Amino acid sequence: MALLVQKFGGTSVGTTERIEAVAEKVCRFRKEGHEVVVVVSAMSGETNRLIGLANEIMEEPTPREMDVLVSTGEQVTIALLSMALQKRGCEARSYTGSQVRIVTDSTHTKARIKQIDEQRMREDLDAGRVVVVAGFQGIDESGNITTLGRGGSDTTAVALAAALKADECQIYTDVDGVYTTDPRVVDSARRLKQITFEEMIEMASLGSKVLQIRSVEFAGKYNVPLRVLSSFQEGEGTLITLEDENAMEQPVVSGIAFNRDEAKLTISGVPDTPGSALRILKPVSDANIEVDMIVQNVGEDNRTAFTFTVHRNDFKRAKEVLQRVADELGAREVGGDSKIAKVSIVGVGMRSHAGVATQMFEALSNEGINIQMISTSEIKISVVIDEKYLELAVRALHSAFGLDKLAVEEEAVKRS
Amino acid sequence: MALLVQKFGGTSVGTTERIEAVAEKVCRFRKEGHEVVVVVSAMSGETNRLIGLANEIMEEPTPREMDVLVSTGEQVTIALLSMALQKRGCEARSYTGSQVRIVTDSTHTKARIKQIDEQRMREDLDAGRVVVVAGFQGIDESGNITTLGRGGSDTTAVALAAALKADECQIYTDVDGVYTTDPRVVDSARRLKQITFEEMIEMASLGSKVLQIRSVEFAGKYNVPLRVLSSFQEGEGTLITLEDENAMEQPVVSGIAFNRDEAKLTISGVPDTPGSALRILKPVSDANIEVDMIVQNVGEDNRTAFTFTVHRNDFKRAKEVLQRVADELGAREVGGDSKIAKVSIVGVGMRSHAGVATQMFEALSNEGINIQMISTSEIKISVVIDEKYLELAVRALHSAFGLDKLAVEEEAVKRS
Repeated sequence: MALLVQKFGGTSVGTTERIEAVAEKVCRFRKEGHEVVVVVSAMSGETNRLIGLANEIMEEPTPREMDVLVSTGEQVTIALLSMALQKRGCEARSYTGSQVRIVTDSTHTKARIKQIDEQRMREDLDAGRVVVVAGFQGIDESGNITTLGRGGSDTTAVALAAALKADECQIYTDVDGVYTTDPRVVDSARRLKQITFEEMIEMASLGSKVLQIRSVEFAGKYNVPLRVLSSFQEGEGTLITLEDENAMEQPVVSGIAFNRDEAKLTISGVPDTPGSALRILKPVSDANIEVDMIVQNVGEDNRTAFTFTVHRNDFKRAKEVLQRVADELGAREVGGDSKIAKVSIVGVGMRSHAGVATQMFEALSNEGINIQMISTSEIKISVVIDEKYLELAVRALHSAFGLDKLAVEEEAVKRS
Repeated sequence: MALLVQKFGGTSVGTTERIEAVAEKVCRFRKEGHEVVVVVSAMSGETNRLIGLANEIMEEPTPREMDVLVSTGEQVTIALLSMALQKRGCEARSYTGSQVRIVTDSTHTKARIKQIDEQRMREDLDAGRVVVVAGFQGIDESGNITTLGRGGSDTTAVALAAALKADECQIYTDVDGVYTTDPRVVDSARRLKQITFEEMIEMASLGSKVLQIRSVEFAGKYNVPLRVLSSFQEGEGTLITLEDENAMEQPVVSGIAFNRDEAKLTISGVPDTPGSALRILKPVSDANIEVDMIVQNVGEDNRTAFTFTVHRNDFKRAKEVLQRVADELGAREVGGDSKIAKVSIVGVGMRSHAGVATQMFEALSNEGINIQMISTSEIKISVVIDEKYLELAVRALHSAFGLDKLAVEEEAVKRS
């Protein structure tokens, strides 16, 4: 008998048949005696249809009206899901973001939640009703409709779970959990039973697009146990919590993340004077180009080299900006490579284990893979390598850190 | 420089191109210096699409959730129209029924407006903005979304006009005004420049489906000048007001209305005792069948005949009910005819003119048309005739009351 917040994304509610399947699942939890708050996204395709209508009128519609428009998507879903629940004899009531009073700031199209009034939901729960809330949307203090940006329904779910002090926030998606790495690259990739918020954030930002990163940060901040699981198949998914309860038995590295979307830029022969990093990066960020990894090498002759990565789509534009900067600074040359990939090992276990980097570099070296850039954080080590070695590197690391082995052990347990 | 409330229905905003055309029109009024509040319906087809989705889930969806669902239709239109206005440099802001605070009772799917907070609209108007409001919807005192029933956008427009004390409420439709009768039946049917609320109510309820009858009653109650005009062509339309300013010069009859959707039922040989009317009509209304005209003839031998009309769709069911009643009452027989039509003459001038009925009956008699039932009110006389004479009757009455002649006069003015 727990209080659960369950979130179902666009694919899970993409047709009325799927909405009925969600209702079936929710009813089952309700009948087991749990209190349930459901958060839903717009039916898949609906948000794009609405944006399409807006774009027939203007290329860049005003954000306030855009929010009024797209917030109808989730409103349709809450009504249909409530009907499907009621049809099953499961009392339910739907609420828009404005009705729950999910109060946000006024930054239309990417608002941030400031406050939630859980009173009304509480009354419904006490009366035995399932509460169905529109994800992704809120209302500012002047009563204008706002949205939290794409994927914001995850954030809504976590915020409601925090406000209601729910026992668990369950995010239903089209995958059945978080994996040690992409199963399409490594056959023996294994679903993690548990992972910490910190690890999840590093995994998510590195390309494991299971959860919106903001929602994980939010869950971590308010210590809301978060579970990722599949809408379409049974299973316990992956639980994301503050502390890994089984930390002692856990491996040092929890997962291998990777990203093919980056490109590398190098400006070399830069006079090694204070402020040169700023003079290089400011024009880049002024051009609205986001920079990921940054490495500055120690140089010779008072000159240094400066390398950073950007999204591959921004490569050409960033190179043009850098060319101008190089002329101004009297740098020697600007080089770049868009055929790179970033591979990272992630794990809270790294904190207390020395030699993890060495182990990583050795595994790559054994395969003859050259490392072009290195960047480290407390629970993550990332390297940039030639794109063509990506799959090889991921498999090598997955094996070197014993992530394959666990799969074999689990398999053995299953068979015994 | 007037304050105008302009309402555009589903057909007028059926595509983004049409929404742009509406924006063009609204901008023109704004640039002439008028203050404008626009009320819009859902894009044509949208409400049916949403109802279709609900019906995929249940045959009779709960009214509360139905309102949450269908109210998204107008919300889409207000956003798109506001964008189209902004694109033309015309400052605009959209509001849902809940945001304006159109407070209604809690009768979901056919709520009645109780109160409107015009403060926020007033601020926008003062700031030079066009206010775009979702028609058809409101919010009850507990914050639940409600709708006013189909066609309720007209009512929203009139209610806003009343709350804002607007100079005129303009209803844009696909016809260019109210006609003396249906132009498809009488070639010389003429657009009325002006008509009273009372006349309009009689015309509307008799089948001239230009305006929702509730909105006309509302306009009459609060004395909001109402104008019906075309979305698609220029013209001054028809003004509906409390008093016909040109009453002295107006003809006795303003228009000829008719209705083919009725059927007639007669129960004869009913014992003429107190309460028999009740005993006949109660079972009919208990079966949710609406009765229109009722006539009771003076009978012989303490027996009487009782005739009434119902919607043609209810004919069979009503006859079955009546058969049971006849057995209980010991009535002689039950008869009926579904091949009838109702024709009415309408005009406030009747009040002060005797002999209008005679003139009507004479015109019909001259054409050899037999009258089966008669019913009168202060400003209307209705007769039921054989359906096959309908067109003939309408043309004869249109001519007998001089409605053709005016058209000829207008034509003469145009030509001179």
